Amino acid sequence: MDAASPQGFLVHHGRAGVKEADADFAVIASEVPAAASAVFTRSRFAGPSVLLSREAVADRIARGVVVVSGNANVATGADGRQDAEELRRRVADLIEADENDLLIASTGLIGRRYPMPSLRTHVASVRWPFPGADFDAAATAIMTTDTHPKIRRARCGDATLVGIAKGVGMMEPDMATLLTFFCTDAHVGPVVLDDVFRRVMDRTFNALSIDTDTSTSDTAAVFANGIAGPVDLVEFERALGGVALELVKDIARDGEGATKLIEAHVTGARDRAQAKRVAKAVVNSPLVKTAVHGADPNWGRVAMAVGKCQDDLDIVPERVTIRFGTQEVYPAGPEPEKLERVGEYLKSDEVTLHVDLGVTAHSTGEFTAYGCDLTEGYVRLNADYAT
Amino acid sequence: MDAASPQGFLVHHGRAGVKEADADFAVIASEVPAAASAVFTRSRFAGPSVLLSREAVADRIARGVVVVSGNANVATGADGRQDAEELRRRVADLIEADENDLLIASTGLIGRRYPMPSLRTHVASVRWPFPGADFDAAATAIMTTDTHPKIRRARCGDATLVGIAKGVGMMEPDMATLLTFFCTDAHVGPVVLDDVFRRVMDRTFNALSIDTDTSTSDTAAVFANGIAGPVDLVEFERALGGVALELVKDIARDGEGATKLIEAHVTGARDRAQAKRVAKAVVNSPLVKTAVHGADPNWGRVAMAVGKCQDDLDIVPERVTIRFGTQEVYPAGPEPEKLERVGEYLKSDEVTLHVDLGVTAHSTGEFTAYGCDLTEGYVRLNADYAT
Repeated sequence: MDAASPQGFLVHHGRAGVKEADADFAVIASEVPAAASAVFTRSRFAGPSVLLSREAVADRIARGVVVVSGNANVATGADGRQDAEELRRRVADLIEADENDLLIASTGLIGRRYPMPSLRTHVASVRWPFPGADFDAAATAIMTTDTHPKIRRARCGDATLVGIAKGVGMMEPDMATLLTFFCTDAHVGPVVLDDVFRRVMDRTFNALSIDTDTSTSDTAAVFANGIAGPVDLVEFERALGGVALELVKDIARDGEGATKLIEAHVTGARDRAQAKRVAKAVVNSPLVKTAVHGADPNWGRVAMAVGKCQDDLDIVPERVTIRFGTQEVYPAGPEPEKLERVGEYLKSDEVTLHVDLGVTAHSTGEFTAYGCDLTEGYVRLNADYAT
Repeated sequence: MDAASPQGFLVHHGRAGVKEADADFAVIASEVPAAASAVFTRSRFAGPSVLLSREAVADRIARGVVVVSGNANVATGADGRQDAEELRRRVADLIEADENDLLIASTGLIGRRYPMPSLRTHVASVRWPFPGADFDAAATAIMTTDTHPKIRRARCGDATLVGIAKGVGMMEPDMATLLTFFCTDAHVGPVVLDDVFRRVMDRTFNALSIDTDTSTSDTAAVFANGIAGPVDLVEFERALGGVALELVKDIARDGEGATKLIEAHVTGARDRAQAKRVAKAVVNSPLVKTAVHGADPNWGRVAMAVGKCQDDLDIVPERVTIRFGTQEVYPAGPEPEKLERVGEYLKSDEVTLHVDLGVTAHSTGEFTAYGCDLTEGYVRLNADYAT
């Protein structure tokens, strides 16, 4: 077993005939029941994977997750639901779990049924317990159009934490979905774990936006099997938050066609919700994204994006400050030679756009959103993708 | 005077030194006070042009509008407000109007003051009454990065209606803003005109989205000077709606980098507001826009966009129907040979995406949104634009 992996988790990865050639099937399972929490897409077109997983995690206990890559099993009607139930039952039987203790996640083409015969054959060929816990291989098996696997680890007292993620658009070229899974051997009670996980997700994955589109299958889940014993909860939340944030940045950098990570840091808001609204407006604006791509110190577009928060009547231009990196560009625009330096700054591959709204000085009125630039590569990838 | 122009309106257009070489200044004025209505951007960064115009039209009577092209006069502080007041006062004096009867609209660079000396010199050189009513020239003078002027006309009984518009992004490359002005010699009372105008704007210009960004200076205004006498109001609303819709389509077709007009037609919604939400989600989705650009019959992306309306709990996949043109693609996907035909359809330069939500059969639960495809040209235009 990988020394850097949490104890008591086993990983299966393989080729189950969903994709033509690549790994397309993974199971991550705890040998003992684990405290579990998960958050899902709110899409009205969510498919059976999300619906079944939502039920599975409702009691905050689970054994793990089965992941199919290459087929989203979305918009497949009653047949698709039956397929998902059958696949989950077969994997649950394999790992000697109650089927309602297993989550299922699928990403890929919409509107096409699973290739059930080859999935059945594949599952029948797998033996439990799995021989190892190769999370790197799992991170690779869940990829669709990602250009590289995303995996991050942390220690927390005696416990180990590993997180994997995939996703290059909130909804990729047909290949739907953001997936991210966290496994730890820390002992954290299910109610506390749920609290911590939702807080961490809100400031990491919910602060990420590649292209404003939302997948039908987004799933994020954490499993804590307790084998390494109790941990300091503050330290645990910090470790989980750190791993999640690194994965978020990995995803933004690998966004479709992206060349830069953009952080929109908003301060001085009335409250956190207002700061989040403004940060997302900035990081989602196609004109801000193209300006950063072109390294154009065009702060007027950031002002425009802030202005889009039309119902925030306490935002007034006279109190707003905009900085690119550390350089103030509004209201005190830099001299021409400094503007050039701002242009240089925008050429780096991590760019921070800072907006202070000047509504309050509370440190709670703060939020950072993560995104990427909008490039011709994004359009090419998504326009030329053939169904 | 142009025979196809409404009586009693005069137009001045010229070069006032705002742009380097092109026409950049226009005044559209009624010789007598006209009933007037206007709607504006709700941006929190709206500049003095919008603020002054909002006051000017509050009493629903106005003489016309002065338009500066190439400088938005936004984020220019107290100086910018004084400049706007002075320019408006000078033009009001020229046309013998109360300054509070004149709207002002500006589009172009943000954060830079008007070149007041050359504007003063230009206004001083103009004589009233203007010698003509060349609305075509006005439509040209208000352009920024538009590739051609946008002008549409209609008759309504004895009255004539002309509408002009500019704008190629909701916020163009620095060159902010959608502007549109309608002039008619129909006699329509100010309260009724306001009612009719808001209804028409809601289903035309408010149904338009190029890139989800919102300008700091959007302005739409109508002036009815009554010289041609009363008209049938139903016929008038139809004429105004027709002219506005044609201008909206002109703008979508001329969207930055656009090659196609996309209409998202939603039916079967609970109410009009729900239909509008879904139609805008479809027409704004970058993945739908790139799929249409690539002529990819990728209906999964339309389903995904519908699914983004997360709070509409009465939208369920089982009741939704999606058609590309007249061809149903969901739930009954077409046979392969028909899918090819759908791909062919998507190659045309006007594409209609039809979504029936199946929530109700009320004909009121209906809305059409207008947009354009997302192309590499859009990214190039906006990334390479130098401040």
